[in-house]
Amino acid sequence: MTYRVCVVGGGQLARMMAAPAAELELSLRAVVDDPCGAAAQVITDTVVADPGDLSAMREAVKGADVVTFEHEHIPQHVLHGLAEEGVNLQPSPQALLAAQDKIHMRRVLTEAGVSCPAWRVARNDEDIREFGAEYGWPIVVKTPTGGYDGKGVLLLEEDDAQGWAQLTTWLDHPRGEVLVEQRVAFRQELAVVSARRPSGQFVTWPVVQTTQHDGVCAVVHSPAVLSDEEKTLALRMAHTIASTLEVTGVLAVEMFHTEGGELLVNELAMRPHNSGHLTIEGSLTSQFEQHLRAVLDLPLGATQLTAPHAVMVNVLGSLRDDPSQAYPDLMRLFPEVKTHLYGKQVRPGRKLGHVTAIGQDPERLFARANAAAALLQGTTGKEQR
Amino acid sequence: MTYRVCVVGGGQLARMMAAPAAELELSLRAVVDDPCGAAAQVITDTVVADPGDLSAMREAVKGADVVTFEHEHIPQHVLHGLAEEGVNLQPSPQALLAAQDKIHMRRVLTEAGVSCPAWRVARNDEDIREFGAEYGWPIVVKTPTGGYDGKGVLLLEEDDAQGWAQLTTWLDHPRGEVLVEQRVAFRQELAVVSARRPSGQFVTWPVVQTTQHDGVCAVVHSPAVLSDEEKTLALRMAHTIASTLEVTGVLAVEMFHTEGGELLVNELAMRPHNSGHLTIEGSLTSQFEQHLRAVLDLPLGATQLTAPHAVMVNVLGSLRDDPSQAYPDLMRLFPEVKTHLYGKQVRPGRKLGHVTAIGQDPERLFARANAAAALLQGTTGKEQR
Repeated sequence: MTYRVCVVGGGQLARMMAAPAAELELSLRAVVDDPCGAAAQVITDTVVADPGDLSAMREAVKGADVVTFEHEHIPQHVLHGLAEEGVNLQPSPQALLAAQDKIHMRRVLTEAGVSCPAWRVARNDEDIREFGAEYGWPIVVKTPTGGYDGKGVLLLEEDDAQGWAQLTTWLDHPRGEVLVEQRVAFRQELAVVSARRPSGQFVTWPVVQTTQHDGVCAVVHSPAVLSDEEKTLALRMAHTIASTLEVTGVLAVEMFHTEGGELLVNELAMRPHNSGHLTIEGSLTSQFEQHLRAVLDLPLGATQLTAPHAVMVNVLGSLRDDPSQAYPDLMRLFPEVKTHLYGKQVRPGRKLGHVTAIGQDPERLFARANAAAALLQGTTGKEQR
Repeated sequence: MTYRVCVVGGGQLARMMAAPAAELELSLRAVVDDPCGAAAQVITDTVVADPGDLSAMREAVKGADVVTFEHEHIPQHVLHGLAEEGVNLQPSPQALLAAQDKIHMRRVLTEAGVSCPAWRVARNDEDIREFGAEYGWPIVVKTPTGGYDGKGVLLLEEDDAQGWAQLTTWLDHPRGEVLVEQRVAFRQELAVVSARRPSGQFVTWPVVQTTQHDGVCAVVHSPAVLSDEEKTLALRMAHTIASTLEVTGVLAVEMFHTEGGELLVNELAMRPHNSGHLTIEGSLTSQFEQHLRAVLDLPLGATQLTAPHAVMVNVLGSLRDDPSQAYPDLMRLFPEVKTHLYGKQVRPGRKLGHVTAIGQDPERLFARANAAAALLQGTTGKEQR
């Protein structure tokens, strides 16, 4: 086999790269933490290594034409160590820094003229109180690194004792700084999933609308309901970010569509992203296939849609021991809904899988997908999402 | 994981079951001949065993909820040995016999009132000459078992010395009989791919047109151009066969559409089949996912189409050392064509992969898919298919 890809990460994103890698006869190795985890269950070539251990990583990625990532938690010193030895990292350590470090991200986006919520670096309570006084409480406080799925993010009220205590532990960290941001009043949250090759080719899928529950992506609608001007602006912002930062592979840009009609960038991810899962069924080329093509600097696949609308609903936790116990009912009641489970042990709120429905009528698609997800969660009739 | 499937076979059909098994979090084991073959490259749980060795097979399939097959070459004594020990085989040995033994197949189809070409069992040259005199030369002669992709099939002229010599070796076989059939003058060849659960649920995809080169499937068009009456008849024939033989899993029925307008069954396959590969992109549920659902007796997926037309072209051999060398050109010129390679060593005429194009215009889809396949074969500009 000609093309050898190594992905660092053992979760559902690496898992979902296995299918397009097999289709394209790419050799796919995953560097995993858990030899029985989501990726290792379905990828034949897995190596257990700590992404923080340069010498272990050096061994683990040997022979790969390209090394890529399913998460942002590989330390920069390891990335630079590998790059210095000639390992082909896509995206590059420099690009990845903007997905790893939210303060760096705000700086480079602001320099590039990309609209963001008002932000500031805060080093002590006084900085924070000043920012809150200026922009109004509550404000959003984020740890510069290590956050995901709502972790490392705090909505802080002026008099929130628990929040301030949390903040103190964050500022106690050797780095001693946090990112503070204006809380944005938004109509909807959006995401643009795109892909870029090292040689510059750039494609996007349509802008999607995302719905978060407790900071975790719960529902994605494609395409988002936007004016043509707003769509164009959102795609242009993604292009500016991808080209300015020289991002390679899939880039997901999460945005607020504010009550005032502005588009403000919230977060970046330089890898396949939850907001792009519906491309598996909803587009001729999925984000997972596209990521592999892009990091190999192969021409990108067509992103045309297979249906006018697609809706994805995450399976977040389950009251069942195993969500697949729902299959007899699920498959009988929802023969057109596509189910994806990630082979993970059930834990409360954990992303165990997702379901996707594609077709003509977005309201019906949402109702069907949501009911299907509820069956997998074991919450049918027990709660309203 | 709740559902454990074991598939016997190490080729591309088992390989293409890996993706839906991962999506549905099914545990998939493959019993393979080659530990580095098409299936073993992408399925984490593989066991090497000879399908003719009952005790090896007994060990290999242990713990599976259901055992299924990607080819017809498991001897009946092994199937019965496993069944007697309570192994859940889908399809059953009795059903599989009709896919293994062409004489048995003709008998049961004729009993069920399903139209076939005129046929007879021949035990010597005299039987054959008599059949040829009655139905006209040339006639088609088939070994009862072991044939595939045009092997074990002979178009026999009355004065074809080489053919008669071949025939003598076939009749020398202990079984001492061959199947002789009238040669059918056909407008087109068709296939109906369907799926049936043990509990009886039955679904089909639209009738497709298949084009063979030297007895090997080369191109599939979906849907076939037929009158509504002909479509209904073809689907009804598939249903009759599946329910009469109690076939479970995917059933492919290959048919001749004769110059006189009749539909006559040519061959059966009780597994995912080359004529159904285009369901991966062309239908909401692929034949590979459907086969897994069906053999587990889970409700079947919706077979609705994702585009009005789909065309598949096989990659048969390659002048390249490795067909994926074509990727930079292939992906640049045909971003909308979906490529599937099976991880096989190149050999002349070997099924190395296939490409699929879905969309509106069947002629354009064929032209694009065919040119893409030629790039993988390294035959662009060198021959006209």
